Amino acid sequence: MSKPNSAKAEPSADGIRALFFDVFGTLVDWRTGVAREAEAVLKPLGFHLDWQAFADAWRDRYQPGMEPVRSGAMPFAKLDALHLQMLQNILPSFGLERISTSVQHQLTMAWHKLDAWNDVRAGLERLRRDYLLAPVSNGNIALMCDLARRNQFPWDAILGAELARNYKPMPEVYRTAVEAFDLEPSQCMMCAAHSSDLKAAAENGLRTAFIARPEEQPGMSESSPTVPVNFSAQSIEELADRLSI
Amino acid sequence: MSKPNSAKAEPSADGIRALFFDVFGTLVDWRTGVAREAEAVLKPLGFHLDWQAFADAWRDRYQPGMEPVRSGAMPFAKLDALHLQMLQNILPSFGLERISTSVQHQLTMAWHKLDAWNDVRAGLERLRRDYLLAPVSNGNIALMCDLARRNQFPWDAILGAELARNYKPMPEVYRTAVEAFDLEPSQCMMCAAHSSDLKAAAENGLRTAFIARPEEQPGMSESSPTVPVNFSAQSIEELADRLSI
Repeated sequence: MSKPNSAKAEPSADGIRALFFDVFGTLVDWRTGVAREAEAVLKPLGFHLDWQAFADAWRDRYQPGMEPVRSGAMPFAKLDALHLQMLQNILPSFGLERISTSVQHQLTMAWHKLDAWNDVRAGLERLRRDYLLAPVSNGNIALMCDLARRNQFPWDAILGAELARNYKPMPEVYRTAVEAFDLEPSQCMMCAAHSSDLKAAAENGLRTAFIARPEEQPGMSESSPTVPVNFSAQSIEELADRLSI
Repeated sequence: MSKPNSAKAEPSADGIRALFFDVFGTLVDWRTGVAREAEAVLKPLGFHLDWQAFADAWRDRYQPGMEPVRSGAMPFAKLDALHLQMLQNILPSFGLERISTSVQHQLTMAWHKLDAWNDVRAGLERLRRDYLLAPVSNGNIALMCDLARRNQFPWDAILGAELARNYKPMPEVYRTAVEAFDLEPSQCMMCAAHSSDLKAAAENGLRTAFIARPEEQPGMSESSPTVPVNFSAQSIEELADRLSI
């Protein structure tokens, strides 16, 4: 499926100027990273959990945790603050209800310390030659900066939820990103491992690329998109093969 | 005044985590660049102006052009849109009242094609090792991205007016930048060639560094700050000498 780097980009890539990336799951392995960081913080305090189950439980609170902002029931708060609330919700299920606020904050910083999948850095470096690149993530700016430093993501700008002051899949997140680059929606492509994100992007006129991430949550990840997309690839490197001009 | 790169940062740099940069004048030479681009667009159309006087006249409209947004008289509009309005205001003085809208847009893009002063790239590369770096400019995100690509500015994020939806020296521009990095104001330092910018930053609790840019507008540039500052340097390289940890 992949083409040599020197090949012309596929016709359907015509006119694309910017690539927007989902980050959690699509570019970074949150499950392994959160499990590892939780163990590093909690094991010395005498806790012995199923660390991956802990990461999964935390992530399960992700979509419902943003819903009050999307519905307007609460004003915008950064994902760091919502991650802390989601954590507080799951503490009792893991016998962690007595951990201090300071330990809760340390745990929340786990989301700033996630590692990219192996193909990401080289793929983004190649895509950067021909396209503007930005994360369009629900993660806040400081979180995106920490992940970018750790993994050497070559972003042109940090777009996404904090700029839009709302959360994906609300239309304003995609629209604000498009407007920040002074482009038309059809000149921008959302790249994500999750069909819900791509569906919303397409509804707002963006083009879409599905990136398969079977390792995100083995057994639960989407192996192929459930919605029509412009591209479907197994890695960011393959996306670069397909899009290189 | 400069120290070897391996020296310890000065005591007053203690606790600084992020450096915020003014861009027009402080990092890039808008006067030469706008004059050059205006000549490139208008000379083939048969116009022969004093190109530097044209650049100066355009820039003279800069502060008053943002005032309606600051006062609340008009909603936020990106600097590109304001640059176009400012241009339209000066066209008659240069006998340019008949140029087309398309030429006006081409001229406005001159502000996306400015070159950095010689010391900037190397200085920022060194500072990036120890500090988060971001522009806190009145320029919009797309404009900042174009200048960053052209001059290889290694930004962690594009902060400033478009994120805050207001213009410096309004407090929210500095505060929004500080909050985006999850820092305290005293952990951030505003670096600029203009005392008005540094005064407002200091009033909002940020630390300040004056960068002398005598070539910005010869005869009119500040050779030293008119307000108290934490650092004063002749270049970004000198700032890196002083701040390197």
